[in-house]
Amino acid sequence: MNVDLINIGNELLLGIVTNTHAAYLGQKLAELGFHLERQVTVADDPAQIAAALREALERADIVMMTGGLGPTSDDMTASVVGKFFNLRFRIDQKVQKANEEWFKKRGVPMPELVKHQALVPEGSIVLYNEHGTAPGFILSISGKRTKWLIVLPGPPRELKPMFEKDVVAFIREKFPGQSPVEWRVLRIAELGESVVQERVEKKMKEEFPGLEVAYCARPGEVDLRLSGPKDLVERAESVARKILGLHVFGEGSAEIEMEATVIRLLRERKKTVTCAESCTGGALANRFTNIPGSSEVFLGGWVAYSNDFKMRELGVSAEVIKKDGAVSEAVAREMAEAARKKSGADFTLSITGIAGPNGGTAEKPPGTVFIALAAKEKTEVWREFFPVDRWTFKWRVAQHALNRLRLELLKKETHD
Amino acid sequence: MNVDLINIGNELLLGIVTNTHAAYLGQKLAELGFHLERQVTVADDPAQIAAALREALERADIVMMTGGLGPTSDDMTASVVGKFFNLRFRIDQKVQKANEEWFKKRGVPMPELVKHQALVPEGSIVLYNEHGTAPGFILSISGKRTKWLIVLPGPPRELKPMFEKDVVAFIREKFPGQSPVEWRVLRIAELGESVVQERVEKKMKEEFPGLEVAYCARPGEVDLRLSGPKDLVERAESVARKILGLHVFGEGSAEIEMEATVIRLLRERKKTVTCAESCTGGALANRFTNIPGSSEVFLGGWVAYSNDFKMRELGVSAEVIKKDGAVSEAVAREMAEAARKKSGADFTLSITGIAGPNGGTAEKPPGTVFIALAAKEKTEVWREFFPVDRWTFKWRVAQHALNRLRLELLKKETHD
Repeated sequence: MNVDLINIGNELLLGIVTNTHAAYLGQKLAELGFHLERQVTVADDPAQIAAALREALERADIVMMTGGLGPTSDDMTASVVGKFFNLRFRIDQKVQKANEEWFKKRGVPMPELVKHQALVPEGSIVLYNEHGTAPGFILSISGKRTKWLIVLPGPPRELKPMFEKDVVAFIREKFPGQSPVEWRVLRIAELGESVVQERVEKKMKEEFPGLEVAYCARPGEVDLRLSGPKDLVERAESVARKILGLHVFGEGSAEIEMEATVIRLLRERKKTVTCAESCTGGALANRFTNIPGSSEVFLGGWVAYSNDFKMRELGVSAEVIKKDGAVSEAVAREMAEAARKKSGADFTLSITGIAGPNGGTAEKPPGTVFIALAAKEKTEVWREFFPVDRWTFKWRVAQHALNRLRLELLKKETHD
Repeated sequence: MNVDLINIGNELLLGIVTNTHAAYLGQKLAELGFHLERQVTVADDPAQIAAALREALERADIVMMTGGLGPTSDDMTASVVGKFFNLRFRIDQKVQKANEEWFKKRGVPMPELVKHQALVPEGSIVLYNEHGTAPGFILSISGKRTKWLIVLPGPPRELKPMFEKDVVAFIREKFPGQSPVEWRVLRIAELGESVVQERVEKKMKEEFPGLEVAYCARPGEVDLRLSGPKDLVERAESVARKILGLHVFGEGSAEIEMEATVIRLLRERKKTVTCAESCTGGALANRFTNIPGSSEVFLGGWVAYSNDFKMRELGVSAEVIKKDGAVSEAVAREMAEAARKKSGADFTLSITGIAGPNGGTAEKPPGTVFIALAAKEKTEVWREFFPVDRWTFKWRVAQHALNRLRLELLKKETHD
């Protein structure tokens, strides 16, 4: 079973928008037991869309297309597909009614152009859009063997629910018994890609012939991916976990972020956390609060960006700032301890550093950061150095702070 | 001049990593006067990489490949290219020395595997990697006419500086006089895609025949893209800006985020800002502080997630929370005014709402949010409703709050 994906849109090739559909659909298809074989992006151009469709139908059993279903004049996917297969269109009453409701709920008049959105190919399975006005559709393409064309809207918040609700059910029904591609990802903190390979690869290859081992590095984390027969993958995973120990912060086939692990550990232990950030400017709090249910354990935080804010709100002393600088062990310690005391949380993380690109001294160049973790019994402070771009720095530092808290929570586990 | 892009990596097709290179390189190539014609993703598989390379070389004058240059066993791009063109490899002393320095600077021993990274194809132009250990390279492919193969490492923080420094210089030298593709993007707040088209399309088509007009919607913003001959684009832009007025928050060919516009307006006016966030949990502060130089105008913020935190730190009264609920106009107002007073900032934005997926009542379902903007003279509060997923909600609300501040700053301009 081959699946090809065609993403349509000039904005993807001009780089105005990042294509997130390839990753999303690739992951979902793998979970359903299909390998996405090839992904192609083409422009909003009838000839190019038709050419990509022709090529994909030669190769694949299922062709998925995304984008170009909107109400505006550069949206031409439905009409290209219609001409390609010589289809008639009909007005779908359910779509039309839902679109009228959509605008009514928001209290704005329905634009004239949206009325076209109710047109769907005759004979297609209509995919209703609960988060937008453009329906998707599925066509069966007869031939030596039946192939399927699945056409989905471009906006991720419309495509994802439509895929998860209707397309997954459709694929499960049409292709029963497809066994999922077996793979496990171990997510690893604070070790480089090469170091991970040096620690695990030899053992994996020797003990588990036939296992596919792959690595993927991102700022502050490395994925170790094991794939192959189910039994082999499971045994290999347990050996790899033993070798990597506490460096493994997440596992499974889903994307597990460090913050999800930390929130889970806090909830399990009924402990609360707050944070006091300077250079990360809210990035740490933002990651905590991305997790549904975080409000049970995350009480709040301070973004103490200016020195004045640090002094007024967290009582950092002017003398310490003058003596050691705002980016210092002493200030990180004062921020963490004051914030913990004020909030009554079990743990507080504080961060003060130089994100760059400007600022810093020879002794404390951009990338320098102090991270403190205050608990009832003690406060620990670490000095770290991440000489990377501003965005990566913020992410990397938040990751490091989250990991310090994770290790502390796991340590507590063995003590309690 | 056709450019094809081949992205290599199982992780892209399995959906473990989102492909950001296509958008980045598409944008950069457009700025250099090249249209990215087609983008393909293939697996870490020698046969598939070779097949994609063969196809791209038939079509394109420049083929770019990304990924698979790392030190681990699943990185095979260099060896596939080597076999494809029957190349020899040599050790590059400059790469080897830089890699030794790289590990020395970080105080960790250089892994054995990294030593292979110094191997480059003989006769290629070596692209030195200042942010990682894998060099890229450029090969000239002789034939009826010379074609070029540009091979770049996968991690974005390595690829981007390498492209901007060496590849741009190479392309400018080899293809002088290529005139940039002319286009302008107007970024528009708080209007839907259909409404934007209804307002501008007819006029654009009538007054500027030959102009290409396209639309792209994201949460809280729409891009209007105008492309065609330079003169036409410039005239059309000025007409579109007049029609859309204050809805336009950014323009130009670069990606301009709302927060960049707001930080610029604050800096120009020498005004300061703080924020007090509940449901967005740091997302607003995080966006402010993504902008270099934001520390001149952004003093700090509170992430007042729990009710207790709202009361203790911002003096929100228990009675008001009991009477109106934490998600209410009164609480938004108290948060904004208290935060402004405590921080001494010119403006404070506050946000309280229900991100979902859980919580809420019939009267205030998930997606309900109150946004307040406190200034010296007055505090305004708006009730909004964004019934979308948690991540989009946080982003959309932060966007709306930023836009309220932008409009206030522009209003001041006409008054002062």
